[in-house]
Amino acid sequence: MSVTKILVAQGGGPTAVINQSIVGAVLEARKFRNVDLVYGAYHGVRGIVDEDFLDLTQETSHNLEMVGNTPSSGLGSTRDKPDLKYCQEIFKVLKAHEIGHFYYVGGNDSSDTVRIVSEEAKKANYDLRCIHIPKTIDNDLTVNDHTPGFPSAARFVAQAFMGVNLDNAALPGVYIAVVMGRHAGFLTAASALGKKFPDDGPHLIYIPERVFVLDKFLADVKSTYEKYGRCVVAVSEGIHDEKGVPIITKLAAEIERDAHGNVQLSGTGALADLLCEEIKTKLKISRVRGDTFGYLQRSFIGCVSDVDQREAREVGEKAVQYAMWDKTDGSVTIHRTGFYSVDYQLTPLLEVAGKTRHMPDEFIAASGNDVTDAFRLYLRPLLGSRMPDAYRLRLNRVPKILNPD
Amino acid sequence: MSVTKILVAQGGGPTAVINQSIVGAVLEARKFRNVDLVYGAYHGVRGIVDEDFLDLTQETSHNLEMVGNTPSSGLGSTRDKPDLKYCQEIFKVLKAHEIGHFYYVGGNDSSDTVRIVSEEAKKANYDLRCIHIPKTIDNDLTVNDHTPGFPSAARFVAQAFMGVNLDNAALPGVYIAVVMGRHAGFLTAASALGKKFPDDGPHLIYIPERVFVLDKFLADVKSTYEKYGRCVVAVSEGIHDEKGVPIITKLAAEIERDAHGNVQLSGTGALADLLCEEIKTKLKISRVRGDTFGYLQRSFIGCVSDVDQREAREVGEKAVQYAMWDKTDGSVTIHRTGFYSVDYQLTPLLEVAGKTRHMPDEFIAASGNDVTDAFRLYLRPLLGSRMPDAYRLRLNRVPKILNPD
Repeated sequence: MSVTKILVAQGGGPTAVINQSIVGAVLEARKFRNVDLVYGAYHGVRGIVDEDFLDLTQETSHNLEMVGNTPSSGLGSTRDKPDLKYCQEIFKVLKAHEIGHFYYVGGNDSSDTVRIVSEEAKKANYDLRCIHIPKTIDNDLTVNDHTPGFPSAARFVAQAFMGVNLDNAALPGVYIAVVMGRHAGFLTAASALGKKFPDDGPHLIYIPERVFVLDKFLADVKSTYEKYGRCVVAVSEGIHDEKGVPIITKLAAEIERDAHGNVQLSGTGALADLLCEEIKTKLKISRVRGDTFGYLQRSFIGCVSDVDQREAREVGEKAVQYAMWDKTDGSVTIHRTGFYSVDYQLTPLLEVAGKTRHMPDEFIAASGNDVTDAFRLYLRPLLGSRMPDAYRLRLNRVPKILNPD
Repeated sequence: MSVTKILVAQGGGPTAVINQSIVGAVLEARKFRNVDLVYGAYHGVRGIVDEDFLDLTQETSHNLEMVGNTPSSGLGSTRDKPDLKYCQEIFKVLKAHEIGHFYYVGGNDSSDTVRIVSEEAKKANYDLRCIHIPKTIDNDLTVNDHTPGFPSAARFVAQAFMGVNLDNAALPGVYIAVVMGRHAGFLTAASALGKKFPDDGPHLIYIPERVFVLDKFLADVKSTYEKYGRCVVAVSEGIHDEKGVPIITKLAAEIERDAHGNVQLSGTGALADLLCEEIKTKLKISRVRGDTFGYLQRSFIGCVSDVDQREAREVGEKAVQYAMWDKTDGSVTIHRTGFYSVDYQLTPLLEVAGKTRHMPDEFIAASGNDVTDAFRLYLRPLLGSRMPDAYRLRLNRVPKILNPD
C-alpha cells in the first residue's frame, strides 16, 4: 500500500450529498500515514486533463465538514464523457503527478471512465488503485440497493407533492409536475410518498418503465377528475411512446442534444406545458397547471435525508479503506441488510460501469400509473427522519338554511 | 359584544402559513363565552354563497394545531372575486345563519370583499363585525410592513437560489428561474438572500417595478457570463415592457386569462423557455437552462419561516380580539417596531382593500437588476431561524506539471 498522492473527483449532475462522499474520502485518506497529499480535480475529468488540481491537504477539516453538509458538487463537475483517447489523457496526467489512488464519484458514465482508466493503468503496468464511488439522483446504478443522492432528491419530490396536493385541494383543478429521471422512474415514483389520506394526490404516476399512451393518459386524468373533482399527476421527464420516442420530442420543434447525444429534458418546461395543453383542449377542463421541478430537486438546500448523508459519507470512507487494504479496483456498492440497515461491498467495475438499472416490476402497479406497497416499503426508510406530515380539517358539515339538501 | 356564531374563511392563493391565521382565530374565538359556534366556509366566498360550512367547534384543538402547521388553505380557497351582487348573496347567507363576526383571510381582492360585505351589513342595519386578516406571498398589501405567507415563500426562494447557484457553479452555464409575483417584485428580490460569496448568483434580478428591455437583459447576461463564466438570473413572472405588456404575451400564442381578466403567469414554463431561447440564439451560449418555481414556492412543506408562522398565528388571534373589544370593522395590519419586532393594528378597510403595494425605490439598485442592502436588512429577520448556509472549498491550486502556467 505504498501511496503518496491520491486524487478525488466528482462527475455528472450534482446531488444534495455528493460532497459528503468527497469529504468522507478526503478525511479518511488523511488518516493514513502513507498519504502525503490529497488532490481534488476541479470540474471532474475535465479538471484532470487540464491539470487543474486543488490541494485538499491544505483544507481545514472544519471547512470540509461544512462543505460536506452543502449540496451540489463542491469540486465542480463536468458533462464530458471520456472515450478511450480521453481516458488515456487522464492516465497520462495521473502518471505525471504520480497519483497512487484515483477516486471518482459519479453515476454509470463515471464508473465507465474509472473502468477504462483502470485498464489503461494495468496495460502500462502502473500501480494505480481506481475506485468508483456511487452517486445519482436517478437511482439507476446496477448492483446497488440504492445510490447516494437519490434519497434526498426523493425526499424533495415527496415533500413537494405533499405541498402541491394540498394546494390543488384548496384550489381544485388538474396539476401536473414533471420529475427528473431519464430512464429510471424511481424519482418520479417517490411522489407517492407524499400521499397520506386515500384521496390525496399524486393520483397518477407515469414512469419511463412503462409506455406512455396519450389517449390512455387523458382517460386516466378524466376519470380521476370525475371522481375527486381534481387530479394531481407525477410525470417522469423520460416518458416515451411504444417506439421509445420521448413524448417531449412530439412537441419541441428544435431538440437540443447534450454531449452524450441525449435529448435535453431538464431546464425546460415544455413537457408539462404540452401535457397541460392536451388536457385543456381535449378534456375541456379549465384549471390545468403544470410545473417542472427542474434543478430544485437535486440542489435544494435544506431538504436532505440524514440517512442519505450518512451513507454518502460512508461510501467515500469505504472507498479509501478498500483502496488501502484490498488489491483490486472496483465500485463501492450499497446493499440492504435489514429494516433498515445497509452494508457496503467493493464490486467489480464491469458489473456497474455504463449499465442502467430500471424500476423492478414489483414496484410498479399493474395499472402502470401507480406504485406498489413494496415500493413504499423500499423507499420510506431512505427518506430519513423528521419527514414533515400534512393534516386536514375534519368535514363536520353545518346544515344549510337557505337551500337545505 | 353579543355574538353567538362566527364565520372564518380563506381566499386567494394558499400560503405556507395561512392555516395558522385560521387556527389563531378559531382557538381565540373558542375562548370567549359569548361564542357558541365557530363556522368555517369551505372554499372561501364560494362556500359562503353555497352555504357550505364546516363546524369548527367540533374540531379538536390538537388537530387544529396540526393543521396550523400544515401549508395550503385547509378550509379550501376560491378564485372567485365577488362583485356587489355576489357580496349581497354573501350577506344574505350570513344573515340567514345569524353570523355575528365574519373573518376573511386573504390578499387585496379578499379585503375588498370584506369591505363590500361590511357596507352591505351597515346598509341593512345588521350587527356584523367584518375583519380582514392579511395574507399574500406577493407581499403587496398596503399599510403592512409585510404580509404573512411572504416570509416563508421568500425563504423557499432564497434557499432554492442557494442551491441552484451551487449547481450552476458545478456545471457552469446560464440559469434562469422564474419567480411568482404579478405586480410586486418582493418575492423575486428574495433570491438575493440566497447569495453569500461575492461571485454567487443570482447575478441578475428582474422585477415588475422596472421596465424589462430584452436587449438590456441580453447585454447584462453577456457581461456577467464573460466575468464569471456563468450567470444565474432571477426573473419575476410579471416582467413587462414599457407599455406594461407582460413579456410572456410576446411568446404565448394563446393567452389564458383567469376570472379576474389576468393573464395566466403561473403553472406554465413558457416565460423561462422564451428567455432561454433568446440567450441561446442571440448570445450563442450553449448551456442555458430555465426553471419555473411554480406552485412549490407557496406550497412546499418543510420550508417555513418560524417568524412567519408566529405572525400568521397572531394576526388571526388579533382579528378576534379587535372584533370582540372594538366597534369597528377593519384589516389587521403588521407594523415593524424594532430589529426585529412587530406590532399589530386594526386599519380601516378602505386603506387596504383592492390596493397594490410595490417594492419601494430604496430596495432596488440603481442598475435596476439587483436589490440594495436596505432590502437585505428588511428581509433577513423575516426568513426566521435555522436558515441553511452554503460552504465552499478554498481553491489551493496545485502547480501543473505537463503544461506549467
